[in-house]
Amino acid sequence: MALKNKKEKNFSEWYTEIVGETGAKLADIRYGVQGFIAQRSLAVNIIRKIENLFEKEVEADGYEPILLPVVVPKKNIEIEKEHVEFAPELFWLTEAGGEKLEEPLYLRPTGESQIYPMYSLWIRSHKDLPFKRYQSRINVYRYEATTRPFLRGREFVFFESHGVFPTHEGVLKQVEKDVEITKKVVHKQLGVPYLLFTRPQWDKFKGAVNTYAPDCLMPDGKVSQIASTHDLGQRFSKAYNVTFTDENEKKQFAWQTCFGPGIWRILAGVIGIHGDNYGLVLPFEVAPVQIVIVPIVFEKTSKTVDQKCKELEKTLKAKSYRVKYDDSENTPGWKFNEWEMKGVPIRIEVGPDEIRKRRLTLVRRDTKKKETITEKELEHKIESYASGLLRNITKQAEGALKSAIKPAKNLEQVKKILEDKGIAKANWCSTEMDGENCADILQTETSGGKVRGTLFDEHEKATGNCIICKKQAKHVVYLAKSY
Amino acid sequence: MALKNKKEKNFSEWYTEIVGETGAKLADIRYGVQGFIAQRSLAVNIIRKIENLFEKEVEADGYEPILLPVVVPKKNIEIEKEHVEFAPELFWLTEAGGEKLEEPLYLRPTGESQIYPMYSLWIRSHKDLPFKRYQSRINVYRYEATTRPFLRGREFVFFESHGVFPTHEGVLKQVEKDVEITKKVVHKQLGVPYLLFTRPQWDKFKGAVNTYAPDCLMPDGKVSQIASTHDLGQRFSKAYNVTFTDENEKKQFAWQTCFGPGIWRILAGVIGIHGDNYGLVLPFEVAPVQIVIVPIVFEKTSKTVDQKCKELEKTLKAKSYRVKYDDSENTPGWKFNEWEMKGVPIRIEVGPDEIRKRRLTLVRRDTKKKETITEKELEHKIESYASGLLRNITKQAEGALKSAIKPAKNLEQVKKILEDKGIAKANWCSTEMDGENCADILQTETSGGKVRGTLFDEHEKATGNCIICKKQAKHVVYLAKSY
Repeated sequence: MALKNKKEKNFSEWYTEIVGETGAKLADIRYGVQGFIAQRSLAVNIIRKIENLFEKEVEADGYEPILLPVVVPKKNIEIEKEHVEFAPELFWLTEAGGEKLEEPLYLRPTGESQIYPMYSLWIRSHKDLPFKRYQSRINVYRYEATTRPFLRGREFVFFESHGVFPTHEGVLKQVEKDVEITKKVVHKQLGVPYLLFTRPQWDKFKGAVNTYAPDCLMPDGKVSQIASTHDLGQRFSKAYNVTFTDENEKKQFAWQTCFGPGIWRILAGVIGIHGDNYGLVLPFEVAPVQIVIVPIVFEKTSKTVDQKCKELEKTLKAKSYRVKYDDSENTPGWKFNEWEMKGVPIRIEVGPDEIRKRRLTLVRRDTKKKETITEKELEHKIESYASGLLRNITKQAEGALKSAIKPAKNLEQVKKILEDKGIAKANWCSTEMDGENCADILQTETSGGKVRGTLFDEHEKATGNCIICKKQAKHVVYLAKSY
Repeated sequence: MALKNKKEKNFSEWYTEIVGETGAKLADIRYGVQGFIAQRSLAVNIIRKIENLFEKEVEADGYEPILLPVVVPKKNIEIEKEHVEFAPELFWLTEAGGEKLEEPLYLRPTGESQIYPMYSLWIRSHKDLPFKRYQSRINVYRYEATTRPFLRGREFVFFESHGVFPTHEGVLKQVEKDVEITKKVVHKQLGVPYLLFTRPQWDKFKGAVNTYAPDCLMPDGKVSQIASTHDLGQRFSKAYNVTFTDENEKKQFAWQTCFGPGIWRILAGVIGIHGDNYGLVLPFEVAPVQIVIVPIVFEKTSKTVDQKCKELEKTLKAKSYRVKYDDSENTPGWKFNEWEMKGVPIRIEVGPDEIRKRRLTLVRRDTKKKETITEKELEHKIESYASGLLRNITKQAEGALKSAIKPAKNLEQVKKILEDKGIAKANWCSTEMDGENCADILQTETSGGKVRGTLFDEHEKATGNCIICKKQAKHVVYLAKSY
């Protein structure tokens, strides 16, 4: 059964439906605390696979895991005076064991204020550098006004790697590496393309010198930040006393960076960008079930069909595919719908017809095209379906992103582009703090349009005037509404 | 360098040292909040491997992962009136976003009060049963009076699987399965033997009909509960309205069970039971580094040695071993100490001597015995060292456990056995609630000795009188001090 809400007609309703009880059962918003959701099995299984991809990459880059408490003592946030970005959004623990706590504790809104005091203890000498640690499969907490499953929550899944270097050059190289990792996982393995921006100064992480962040495009025309890498300079090392003695035994403040792929945001991108009116469409790499085997038996179970299915299941499992033989009592049609809803990339159908002709029927989730093959072809076909599916959904998403970007010469054109679910490209006076005034005007005039930044990879030279203040433009920026 | 504190002399100091900065750097207690620790890379890597072992087993048994929030609304604990075991130990969130919360939230002390309200929504019919979900890599929170890394914390790593069945028989079968999983992972794969008890009624999980729990023996004679399986009967299903319609469309309360391997406690067991005065001794299965290659070069680096080491590293990595080539500038002796401290099961030494004779030197962590082998023998030797190490540490631990158990005929003998770091076996009036009075006397008289329960696997018939009240004994119980 298709979803009641059509994606192209009302993306927001479609998203709510596919996430919920009548959809792919990814999350349950009935947990009873606003902004906190129950993550169900399918979501957890996909999330773990996305986390694994990033864990593998950052570990190959020399990062080692640590796990710090979810609570942070009040004094830690006070040290961070200049950049207490999340202070107004904190959750506070004030009582425990029936008594008032001597020092209130807050739930971490991100790791800096808990990790860097430990770095200050762990790092002593230039020989300890680069010092690279990460936390994954953890949660962070922010008292957000509005929440949406996997897009914004008061609790959300977090991944953060924190690098410490003896020089600023080390930081910049790490930024390049983080950019590469993001590309490899998000774009290449999950088929979610994005624009990578250097955020304007007024929209960076407060404690950072610069914030670099990829935005993917959701089908409703809003962009969604799916990761961020911060050049922290020496700001935090000075606040938290992260120092090292150099070759001359002199104490130096370290240079720091942090990188955080937004695991939930990436999942939301996979759901929203690849999904269709029949449910999820999952890349083979992260599909908890990659292949489902459905027996086509109508009247009574057929022993031959059952045996063939079991044999196939065994063969494919031995080849390390994640395969499910659905031998439940439901009808084949029900099963088709069920596994399409859950995004299983490949379906194998085995019925009396297939048995007689010694063939198998294969269906690819994205195209829903059927093909009859011999068993000998199976493994090769699985591989080509897997790569074909990824290629197809990537191409579609790239096309949608590319065609959404439109140049704008003035505010009216920006308004029109944003209303048409597009991303406007325009001249801007500056992405330093003095450009913020124009950004405020833009946001008011377009009911939420934002300056996402300048492209990180490409230097686009501005040759006209700022579309708002008409001063000589210094930058070409991208404007969009956002999650 | 050996540890300053000797394990056999002062286990407590030894444990503190091996966990900390001058030991294997597993945890840092300087986080700044009492009872909350920073878990460092080596600990996180071992913990993940232990979690993986359990995840694999419970998933093979049909459990699927879920992830629920760390916070629970106050009303949920109030539903649970009869068995609010952890109510006095809760941490309370009372403020967020600069305002007082309308309904206070507590940090989960265990999952029942957050999972079962969701089960009540998710389970409808007998067709949904058995319904099996688990959470892992999560934390729970209890305001404990005393804390110790990996043994007791105000925050600690948690793993919980929750099964729902249409009958009590389903629960009992699940208990047997949980017992089997624990045996397979803890005893067989990690070499930590234990006694599996049915806890006395006064010491069970309050909401349970029965609690079954394995206790391992730490070297100081204290036992440590490393898992628990609860037969919850219908107590929670009635409290949280976990119901299903049976074949006759009649509403029934479900039967429930939950199982929780204590990941931290198991790690503490591995550290404390297998470790020696040179550091950790890790079973091959969970060792983050299984094999370390140390080049034996004194004056200057030798290119031949370096090349051979690199070649070995590549070969072993290709065979999926977790191998580390330590080409740092430290001396061979420093490296031996370092990797022994971190518990690496196998060391390969390659020096000019080995190159000349076309041989390799192998050292096994537990025995520290050296052996010179040909390269052709390497893979076979690795496998036999891995299994030999596990066999040896398991045997030692089994011997220690077995020889610690001593029969006691009276309280004086119990006192003596406990003082000698043993476990006393004695006749007891009853493990029902009427035996609690004698347990109180025991605890006072022995400064902390507890009735751990009757053996789960073996029915041991009592043939005398209770060592405390002298009434006819109904049970043979085991008495020990505990963590």
